[in-house]
Amino acid sequence: MATIKDIAIKTKLSTATVSLVLNGKDSRISQKTRDLVIKTAKELNYRPNQLAVGLITKRTKTIGLIVPDIRNSFFSSLAKGIEDECRNNGWTVILCNTSDKHERDLEYINMLASKGVDGILYCMSADSTIEKFQQCYTLLNNLNIRFIMLDRSFEMPNLITARLNHIKGGYLATKHLIELGHKLIACVTGPKHLEDSNNRLEGYKIALKEANISYDESIIVEGDYHMESGISAIDRLINKSFTAIFAFNDMMAYGVYKGLRTHNLVVPTDISIIGYDDIYISEIFEVPLTTIHQPVERLGSTSARILIEIIEKEVQSISIPTYSPTLVVRKSTTKYKPK
Amino acid sequence: MATIKDIAIKTKLSTATVSLVLNGKDSRISQKTRDLVIKTAKELNYRPNQLAVGLITKRTKTIGLIVPDIRNSFFSSLAKGIEDECRNNGWTVILCNTSDKHERDLEYINMLASKGVDGILYCMSADSTIEKFQQCYTLLNNLNIRFIMLDRSFEMPNLITARLNHIKGGYLATKHLIELGHKLIACVTGPKHLEDSNNRLEGYKIALKEANISYDESIIVEGDYHMESGISAIDRLINKSFTAIFAFNDMMAYGVYKGLRTHNLVVPTDISIIGYDDIYISEIFEVPLTTIHQPVERLGSTSARILIEIIEKEVQSISIPTYSPTLVVRKSTTKYKPK
Repeated sequence: MATIKDIAIKTKLSTATVSLVLNGKDSRISQKTRDLVIKTAKELNYRPNQLAVGLITKRTKTIGLIVPDIRNSFFSSLAKGIEDECRNNGWTVILCNTSDKHERDLEYINMLASKGVDGILYCMSADSTIEKFQQCYTLLNNLNIRFIMLDRSFEMPNLITARLNHIKGGYLATKHLIELGHKLIACVTGPKHLEDSNNRLEGYKIALKEANISYDESIIVEGDYHMESGISAIDRLINKSFTAIFAFNDMMAYGVYKGLRTHNLVVPTDISIIGYDDIYISEIFEVPLTTIHQPVERLGSTSARILIEIIEKEVQSISIPTYSPTLVVRKSTTKYKPK
Repeated sequence: MATIKDIAIKTKLSTATVSLVLNGKDSRISQKTRDLVIKTAKELNYRPNQLAVGLITKRTKTIGLIVPDIRNSFFSSLAKGIEDECRNNGWTVILCNTSDKHERDLEYINMLASKGVDGILYCMSADSTIEKFQQCYTLLNNLNIRFIMLDRSFEMPNLITARLNHIKGGYLATKHLIELGHKLIACVTGPKHLEDSNNRLEGYKIALKEANISYDESIIVEGDYHMESGISAIDRLINKSFTAIFAFNDMMAYGVYKGLRTHNLVVPTDISIIGYDDIYISEIFEVPLTTIHQPVERLGSTSARILIEIIEKEVQSISIPTYSPTLVVRKSTTKYKPK
């Protein structure tokens, strides 16, 4: 790779002159000389050595992104939004995939620190508890690395978290079903220890209360966000009374479709279904799924922009707006018809 | 972050001793001293500054990954395989998403060079031509960066490419349909300028020839790998004679399902369908899709391993085995029944 010296030799200028031009401090240098330096730099494929620049400025313009599973479309959309925003600002992203294992969260934080990243966008693995998270939180603070939590987090002092509004999402889904005349709305929730699932259930309860419908725990079934738990939820619900189902993610909604079919129930004629996430495939199903769309890419790009801002301006604390999901009505929900 | 000096002060040892222990050159130092240094280093959260290490060793143990769209499950699975392998070897991955724009390929190569990456795993954007690729190829060679092409590439001297065997995939898909008794097999191909699509068609032709079935161009329709082109392919095919369809990816196969439904044709009773890719959703469709599975994660992990190897051992040239896809039989294909 060419150095400033190579350009100086080729152009017969001093290294000081070349350096001034390449660093844009060239107001006193003639246009002709400037053009020559830039043309030669291009010919020789010169570029500043960012490693050396990083050692001097103490900035690498690099952030780490820690996600549980890049194959999950939620996280790949998030990564897309983050990478786009970083690219626009001349920053780069180191990708870290934890496979939902907490010990890798710690391992990656240490690795990213040793690579000199300026900040981290961090989505905890699903097996995180408050105690486990506390370890990561302490480590990040000891390392003096700026970070923003993505979606999932626990309460800690001065924590910056970019959140999606799951209460509102749960509320919108339930309200849609209520407006269609449904009163017996079953739920297939996510794991009980996860904040996002609890918040969606909270939103469900608020919508019921607003409509004076009493909450019936016997038609609330816990799932694990995987399709199979949607199928087994139907086995547990089939002898109960319900006319609609709110599945807390789209994958479980597909399990619900399958489970209903084995009991010869048709969507939406017999049972209405609403999902959550709006993964790209939801649109192309035989009965396209009504669902809650989460602005995941935008969550990613804004988080990246804010992280860069707090690093560059050395801002200590900042509050990030919560991202509101929206209702996407397709074909899997319809008006309640008494039989 | 703690430095060697901080550890020396805390342990009351010389910086030279601390440095020897931390660099593993401690054979002449007592176990007690070694333990003390390591314990203190841990307490103080010491880690070597990889930026400085990189400047000295000229290695950053970092690779760049250039992909067209991380939201596409092919590329996110590839990234998963690559990241896993790098992590196991103590290497890191910088993620670059080109949104299928060739000028970003060039931009990212320059950026990765300035970040001092040791190598690049490179999947060209879909709009690449041989002329455009030539630019990237020349740039990478001028920058003296080792790289491996992923799946797509053009012929160039000394190019290392990790390939999936698309001829075999096309052959397996077609042979499966022939074995079920089908003779009139329509194709919905990918874009005509892409090698993967041409190779799949090549495999289709080989299987037909083997079975003495003549090739009929009138039932070969060009698609663009997006779902909509699967729908419109049916509009163009509907007045032709065929009993089975080979869609060159799963997304177009879903379009084919949809298109057939609007003409009241049932899968597989009326028409058998086979796809290509085996994206995770293919299994959970109402009629689960028979398809060709590509070992994408393994392609990713092996490419990463080989790239690290050629960097560390300074190997000039290496041949990578081509990855063979496999047939996954589900419910969308069935025996041909004459009417």
